[in-house]
Formats: sequence, C-alpha cells, structure tokens
Amino acid sequence: MSLDPAIAARLKRTADGLVPAVAQQYDTGEVLMLAWMDDEALHRTLTTGRATYWSRSRGEYWVKGDTSGHVQHVKSVALDCDGDTILLKVDQTGAACHTGDRTCFDAGELTVNSA
Amino acid sequence: MSLDPAIAARLKRTADGLVPAVAQQYDTGEVLMLAWMDDEALHRTLTTGRATYWSRSRGEYWVKGDTSGHVQHVKSVALDCDGDTILLKVDQTGAACHTGDRTCFDAGELTVNSA
Repeated sequence: MSLDPAIAARLKRTADGLVPAVAQQYDTGEVLMLAWMDDEALHRTLTTGRATYWSRSRGEYWVKGDTSGHVQHVKSVALDCDGDTILLKVDQTGAACHTGDRTCFDAGELTVNSA
Repeated sequence: MSLDPAIAARLKRTADGLVPAVAQQYDTGEVLMLAWMDDEALHRTLTTGRATYWSRSRGEYWVKGDTSGHVQHVKSVALDCDGDTILLKVDQTGAACHTGDRTCFDAGELTVNSA
C-alpha cells in the first residue's frame, strides 16, 4: 500500500521529494511546529491517524511522540491550493517542541521595527 | 541595511537559501498560507511591518497584497527552535489565497482513514 495516486498527483515536492507540513492544535489554533513529509509519511499519517514525518537529520520516518510520548492525534489534513504545503490539525499531547516548550515558536520572538 | 547579523546567524536555510514562513491570522488563529523568505525578505518584513516573501516561481520579492490589495499587516514574527521556520502573525485583509478563498487550505481537505 502506498499513497492514493490521486493525492500523489496533487503534491508538489521540493528537489529532495519533501513537502512542508504545518501542525496546528485543532482547538486552540496554536501553530505547534513544522516538519517534512514524503509521500509515504503522508500515507502513514492518513491511514494511522498519527502524525508521521520524514526526519531530514536522521534520514528516517518519525512517528511524532514514539520516543517522547508527545503524540499528535490527527483530526484533519489539508493540502494547500498548489499542493506544496500540508496542514495537519492535531491534538498534541504535552509539548510539541523537543525543548519542552508547548510550541517550537515560543522562545523565538523577533522584534518588528516597522515605521 | 540588511538583516540583523544576530538573526541571520540563527537561520537555517534550504539549499536555495530560503526558509518557510507560515502566516497565521493573529486573532482567529487560522493558518492562512505558507510562503518562503530569504534574509532580505525577512529584513523587509521586520522593518516595514508588511509580509514580504521571495516568490520561487517569479524569482522576485513579493509584498503580499501589492497587486491584489490583500495585505498582511504583521503583528509578530517568531523563529522556531532550530531556526528553520518562521511564524508570522498577521492581520490579513480579505482573502489570503489567490483563488479567493480565505486561506490556501480551504479547498484541500483530505480524508483521514485511521483505524
């Protein structure tokens, strides 16, 4: 089994065959993190209901929470208008970030110096 | 003037020098779209308060809304924990998507077939 060919035909992948996937907490709207999927990771996500990514650093599939316990139960999945981004609405157990923060963006605010 | 070197040092870019930027409506939490920034686009975004991206298809900077009127006024900008994603909280005028939809994900829902 692999990704539905009708979905695969809609995907636009980077040169390394990946699509960025944004994970959002389904009820609060928090943007939790961004990770990467290939066709197989998207297939596993859609068929298991567990967010599954391709780890660029480790070169392997990564079921979010398998080691940390910080699971993402998938509520819905959407492609964007040109098929080059995936949006996952999930129910995040605990921290989404490996630092222990709820989201990967909590510690990174920049100053906007507009006129 | 260019991007603050302290910020530039935190960015991790793709092979083509870009970082994915997620735009979220600041009050409703809607994820509107994903686009790409290089250092200069981030610099312009931080200093003008108008979301400015690098258009991969057109090979030029793109101030969101300059042709459509569908401006993004930037409320806050954050980097993620490893500096390879940008989150913009914006106030989106009108539709974020070139199709006329409010977000680029409105028309793209996939079926989740988990057991």
